[in-house]
Amino acid sequence: MNSNQSIETTNESELDRITSSSESASRIWAATDRHTRAAALEAIANALDADADALVLVAGQETNLTEARLRSELKRTSFQLRLFAEVLHEGSYLDVRIDHADSDWPMGAPRPDLRRILQPLGPVLVFAASNFPSAFSVAGGDTASALAAGCSVIVKAHSGHPALSAKVSGLVQDALARAGAPSGIFQTIFGTESGRAVLTDSRIKAGSFTGSIQGGRALFNLAQSRPEPIPFYGELGSSNPVFVTQAAVENRSEQIVAEFIASFTLGAGQFCTKPGILLVPDSSDIPELLAQSTLPPAARLLNDRIHTGYLASLADVSSAAEWLNASTERHAEPPAPSLLITSVETVLSNVKDLTAEVFGPAALVVRYQHEEQLI
Amino acid sequence: MNSNQSIETTNESELDRITSSSESASRIWAATDRHTRAAALEAIANALDADADALVLVAGQETNLTEARLRSELKRTSFQLRLFAEVLHEGSYLDVRIDHADSDWPMGAPRPDLRRILQPLGPVLVFAASNFPSAFSVAGGDTASALAAGCSVIVKAHSGHPALSAKVSGLVQDALARAGAPSGIFQTIFGTESGRAVLTDSRIKAGSFTGSIQGGRALFNLAQSRPEPIPFYGELGSSNPVFVTQAAVENRSEQIVAEFIASFTLGAGQFCTKPGILLVPDSSDIPELLAQSTLPPAARLLNDRIHTGYLASLADVSSAAEWLNASTERHAEPPAPSLLITSVETVLSNVKDLTAEVFGPAALVVRYQHEEQLI
Repeated sequence: MNSNQSIETTNESELDRITSSSESASRIWAATDRHTRAAALEAIANALDADADALVLVAGQETNLTEARLRSELKRTSFQLRLFAEVLHEGSYLDVRIDHADSDWPMGAPRPDLRRILQPLGPVLVFAASNFPSAFSVAGGDTASALAAGCSVIVKAHSGHPALSAKVSGLVQDALARAGAPSGIFQTIFGTESGRAVLTDSRIKAGSFTGSIQGGRALFNLAQSRPEPIPFYGELGSSNPVFVTQAAVENRSEQIVAEFIASFTLGAGQFCTKPGILLVPDSSDIPELLAQSTLPPAARLLNDRIHTGYLASLADVSSAAEWLNASTERHAEPPAPSLLITSVETVLSNVKDLTAEVFGPAALVVRYQHEEQLI
Repeated sequence: MNSNQSIETTNESELDRITSSSESASRIWAATDRHTRAAALEAIANALDADADALVLVAGQETNLTEARLRSELKRTSFQLRLFAEVLHEGSYLDVRIDHADSDWPMGAPRPDLRRILQPLGPVLVFAASNFPSAFSVAGGDTASALAAGCSVIVKAHSGHPALSAKVSGLVQDALARAGAPSGIFQTIFGTESGRAVLTDSRIKAGSFTGSIQGGRALFNLAQSRPEPIPFYGELGSSNPVFVTQAAVENRSEQIVAEFIASFTLGAGQFCTKPGILLVPDSSDIPELLAQSTLPPAARLLNDRIHTGYLASLADVSSAAEWLNASTERHAEPPAPSLLITSVETVLSNVKDLTAEVFGPAALVVRYQHEEQLI
């Protein structure tokens, strides 16, 4: 499904060279004035905006996302970089504390002059997401915040958009070099095993990840099992349950149905904020309204791996719940949106399958009798 | 060495009851006004101060620490509780952020009204320290901060001072009950296995620990390996290396020697801030001055376990370094202070043994040739 899978896995000696230069760069960058770092972030934002047409074209070829969606995401990406530049100029993020010496400090001993300021951690490994090829990928929020804080960055590119990753990496490196940032400040690696190897390298001082619970937990475990454990910031999937009360049903059933359909199919259901479970009172007309609604047309998923994973998790849910909408295209490529239905008792008897995230255009409606069952 | 080891390990059904009531109490406490929580902390501080004589007496029997030291530590303990009460009254700890709705938000979509405030985590398990029987134990800083934040607390008492732990627990529970805190808000458990069992209970939402690197790492690993990992705050041991430059030797050798001796033997070397390693230029007279100095007299260590551990770690270091001071009492009970000496090359060839913390009245002097060797 992707136009370009030819970018090679980074080899072992290259990983060592990259990690070593990242460590050297992080010392220089940490000592750089915050306004200089802000200017570098603004330079990256300008470079992305200047190349927007070409970036959106490559992203569309690799992810099947619409041009409108990709343009909006790229706008968000350069906005994020400029937002962190503003944070740097403003300065309160440093959380500076000055406690002057106090000979009468009532703890029992005089207090010396104490000063505290947040310090950059060192080289950060950023695992890019599949579903936000700009805003949560190579030049996304994790990269922006780490560079802002004074850390060097190694991005582990997502296999779903390798050509875009390589292109954005080049733009970021050029912009940083022109802004006077040290060589090695920003580098990109490819390959699942490369990511694991670098995460467990003692020179790496923090990790970040956007993706599935399973993948995030595996990397978290690696980060925590190191001789020196490091902070690991994971933004993981969720089934995002939505609770519809009896009062809401009485006031705005049709509005809820329309908004729910729009939301669970947005971006072919590939947002981490997709409402995957809709809990409705047993007596409500919402299931009938949903069954009678025309759902949006089928849309291609991000890539083959996502498509295969979607069908597998849809099979898990449908083995324990009923189909709510009629469709012959729900397992096709591209897959039409799917709705399933079950009772709260069934969910409680099979929590693992029925509350797991289904990454794609599907959602589960759950009937309940009493609002106490929602707790 | 202790006067009272008769307090029993908390049994399994009791642990379940304690954890369950801690969970219930944490919900009520989290919803309690911060000024009410401040008053409860002040009530604990007042109760400790009012019973100071009796507490210092029991603490002395169990820990071999001097009365002056124990009185000063108790003063620090009630001070800490009042400090957190002040923090609660002041309120900025909540880190409140209000971002008003902005229809022109340049991210690409309107910003809704966003509000953020720090929330209590839920029941916290506090592992008490051996070497600070008040300030880092039952009613110590971890307990004070967790109660202040709106969390319920379960303290895993340290086996080194069980009678003091039971006595302080009773005072804290009475003070909290009088201040209107919910039943179950503060409880104490006994036994190593009890601590491990409660730390892995899904109802516990954070852990804290003060003690050895080995013990802290084992508990950290447990906390991180749970299905739901939880924050684990460890204050661990260190060998606290002190670097003496050539310029410092020329200006104040004798002062450094006097201060170093006072510092590494303070409290029989049982502070986590003890300088365990003193790096000096090869040409300096500091080793000779140390060898000629009269060290403070032997002092009993906290308890038998600490004494045994001290002799074992002293044996590890002395197998790879030379004795610097003469003493026939260094392995006696109580042990006289010990100084060892070696070169920076020897340390680098045996980092594990020679940089490990020796918890007790011993320190290692390390000669270096060039200041570059210190990096």
